[in-house]
Amino acid sequence: MAFPYKKMDETDFEYIRSITSADRVWTGEAIASEYYHDEMPNYGTFPPELYVEVENKEEISKIMAYCNKMNIPVVVRGAGSGLAGGSNCKYGGIMMSIMRMNKIYPVDHKNQTITVQPGALLLDVQAAASAEGLFYPPDPGEKTATIGGNVITNAGGMKAVRYGLTRDFVRCIEAVLPDGSIEKFSSNVVKNTTGYDVKDLIIGSEGTLCVLTEVTLKLLPAPNCTCTLVMPFNSLEECADMVPKVLDLPFVPTAIEFLERELIEIVERNLHKYLPVKVGNAVLIVMYDASSQSELDSAVEAAAEATLANGAIDCAIANTPERAASVWGVRGAILEGMKADSVSQEECDVVVPRSCIAQYVKDAKRIARNLGLRVEPCGHCGDGNIHTELLRGDDMTDEEWETATHECLTQLYALSKELGGQLSGEHGIGNGRLEFLKEFVGPRMISLYKSIKLAFDENLILNPGKIVEFNQ
Amino acid sequence: MAFPYKKMDETDFEYIRSITSADRVWTGEAIASEYYHDEMPNYGTFPPELYVEVENKEEISKIMAYCNKMNIPVVVRGAGSGLAGGSNCKYGGIMMSIMRMNKIYPVDHKNQTITVQPGALLLDVQAAASAEGLFYPPDPGEKTATIGGNVITNAGGMKAVRYGLTRDFVRCIEAVLPDGSIEKFSSNVVKNTTGYDVKDLIIGSEGTLCVLTEVTLKLLPAPNCTCTLVMPFNSLEECADMVPKVLDLPFVPTAIEFLERELIEIVERNLHKYLPVKVGNAVLIVMYDASSQSELDSAVEAAAEATLANGAIDCAIANTPERAASVWGVRGAILEGMKADSVSQEECDVVVPRSCIAQYVKDAKRIARNLGLRVEPCGHCGDGNIHTELLRGDDMTDEEWETATHECLTQLYALSKELGGQLSGEHGIGNGRLEFLKEFVGPRMISLYKSIKLAFDENLILNPGKIVEFNQ
Repeated sequence: MAFPYKKMDETDFEYIRSITSADRVWTGEAIASEYYHDEMPNYGTFPPELYVEVENKEEISKIMAYCNKMNIPVVVRGAGSGLAGGSNCKYGGIMMSIMRMNKIYPVDHKNQTITVQPGALLLDVQAAASAEGLFYPPDPGEKTATIGGNVITNAGGMKAVRYGLTRDFVRCIEAVLPDGSIEKFSSNVVKNTTGYDVKDLIIGSEGTLCVLTEVTLKLLPAPNCTCTLVMPFNSLEECADMVPKVLDLPFVPTAIEFLERELIEIVERNLHKYLPVKVGNAVLIVMYDASSQSELDSAVEAAAEATLANGAIDCAIANTPERAASVWGVRGAILEGMKADSVSQEECDVVVPRSCIAQYVKDAKRIARNLGLRVEPCGHCGDGNIHTELLRGDDMTDEEWETATHECLTQLYALSKELGGQLSGEHGIGNGRLEFLKEFVGPRMISLYKSIKLAFDENLILNPGKIVEFNQ
Repeated sequence: MAFPYKKMDETDFEYIRSITSADRVWTGEAIASEYYHDEMPNYGTFPPELYVEVENKEEISKIMAYCNKMNIPVVVRGAGSGLAGGSNCKYGGIMMSIMRMNKIYPVDHKNQTITVQPGALLLDVQAAASAEGLFYPPDPGEKTATIGGNVITNAGGMKAVRYGLTRDFVRCIEAVLPDGSIEKFSSNVVKNTTGYDVKDLIIGSEGTLCVLTEVTLKLLPAPNCTCTLVMPFNSLEECADMVPKVLDLPFVPTAIEFLERELIEIVERNLHKYLPVKVGNAVLIVMYDASSQSELDSAVEAAAEATLANGAIDCAIANTPERAASVWGVRGAILEGMKADSVSQEECDVVVPRSCIAQYVKDAKRIARNLGLRVEPCGHCGDGNIHTELLRGDDMTDEEWETATHECLTQLYALSKELGGQLSGEHGIGNGRLEFLKEFVGPRMISLYKSIKLAFDENLILNPGKIVEFNQ
């Protein structure tokens, strides 16, 4: 089975229409080209043979059972905001959108959970929790991503320092397996040692093991107060060294981000958003949430004291929503700023031990410089997840840019490995980072990944060629 | 391969001695009978053919490679405190103790982690963290269990309400796969989307997928203050209904346990440990940790107010270590009390949605009563993890007791499933609950478990017959 997959014909098209609805199925040229790729067209742009918008799990089950029998690949698509080239029809077949499955069920107060369909948008889930006085903490940058996408990539975001990742908020999953079976992984319980922990294996599996149809998410009581501190340092090293010291305090911060002056200037120059703190070559931004003003005050005081005792030039307290917004506005505009400041960008999403952040950043800059590239590391300092943007110089040819970025990524991944880090902190492997994975994790791990993939999908029909590639 | 396994002979014994050391290998009758079983002899008592105490991962790797080739089963043993019959040589072969691999490396302050070998005891890891001003929160009842055992069963414990399970504190794992390969799953990073999340699949896999050789654990700053509240209610329903209300407050409690008066009296009568609160048919015990006295005071005040507004007879505050110790002393003595109060006990470790605790307890008592058994549910109310002890009546014959407990467990598991719960909250499946698992999760899930097992262990040599049984 598997390679080569069956080329879909009119009989297949007709069958899919018959089990869904003709007005939700498109084929060939009629498929909008945005469905050829996710947010990263350069990580894979492939026309599906059929595009279908499913409405319920029974349709998904029938599609999977049929494709499993007929040897047709199926790829699931949410909002298309993935950053790894994970959702594209690399081997043709069906692109299945779950965007119509966006139901949000009422909050379950006694269990402090909310159950949603995978197509529900993150911002709508956050709003639904908030309307009931509760709080869904995972906060990846793209708020119009779907919850299904968040779960299947284990999305992170800035607030992971305190609250953890999407994984930490998934109580249970309902999903369709590649053979069409509908199964529930765990239930609305706080802990579970009943059989293997398949739920956690599914989370972050990038749509290669099963198709999500429903997830139940844990919520928390909403914090009442929040405060952001901006700590400028003379050097990146001092700034990075401050991170473990902040984490040693008895108050767990919600977010710890860092920005170098160069990057702040890119945002200020291109987007006219200004950081209220003008000094320092490297700036640490620390956010605290608390359930009471007194708790918040204690946290802020302790952090400010520790910061000034450890070489910070200043410790600015953004204690009003407006001031905090101006700080986070600059942080949030980084990607846009870099896009405005260069003709092309490539992104590296390594994560390193927190103890190695300064070394990683310094070495990353050296690597890039030697290859004639500008590199701007920034991001989730509290997690060691340093988004490293490579910026194309104006005078580079396409070929020079491609060669240099490939070599730069190769060296950055090797650097991360050497420092005890990982290839991807939160964006995943998909198709875009596949070529680097084998070198990173080694052949025995790849063979284990393949066995795991086959344990779920023996005919390799679900999102083939992502994370692992059998067609070699 | 696999069934029937090779019967070990002198050549095999000699080989194992040659790759370890003769003074760490025992065979046949020379093997102490305590190694025939874990804490639950009635869940499986089987003599190993060889018992070896390994000292490092290289020895483990050689043993696994040999046994994989020769078709000899291997079972790993820590402190033997498992409660599921997970660590016994159901199919003979080798019992491999990792108790000599108990190294605890110095705390890594910059990353707030500690790296330990699997044989390190929980209490020693807790002490090592504490000596450095840090805190390893998972707190299962058995402090002399090994960390390896805690990880491989995803141990829970009372403090899971606030801090989560062992899983939530495992940064990375080094392990030997059944073919002898030594692999590292993740690294000392806070988040990771590099390939499948094999680490989380290994956690809770009860020694059936690989052999742990090292784990790196996340630590937290130690909380400074703690307080315990005892809230007596007239009825179990009121007591259970209070749980979501406590969790709705803006302060996350560390532990929420419940005790019925009957159980308190068993402890008082048999062990002469007395709960300071004498009223109420059901008692909720809530613990708060905090990083400052003011935060703790706010939490205690809010909880006390909410409790009294919701029908509690009283809200006693055990705000000194002595008072708290007397409360937790009674809670900790439950199992011992029940052992003193009955000739035999059987245990059921279901977990249900928190919203269903009162209904579960009521129905569980009815089920037991109808079968002529006494049942005493108690435990982790904040998690919905209700340890349900079945107590043997003095006048029951062995056969009556066995028949009644089997029927009672069958009905209790069905009840848990009906309420949206799970078969085991924290003790696992092992050999002891295997017969109930298939009915509980269904045939498709069992076939998925089998595929996952085979993805790691195609020759079924690692702890065979636990979680899944192929020999049928």
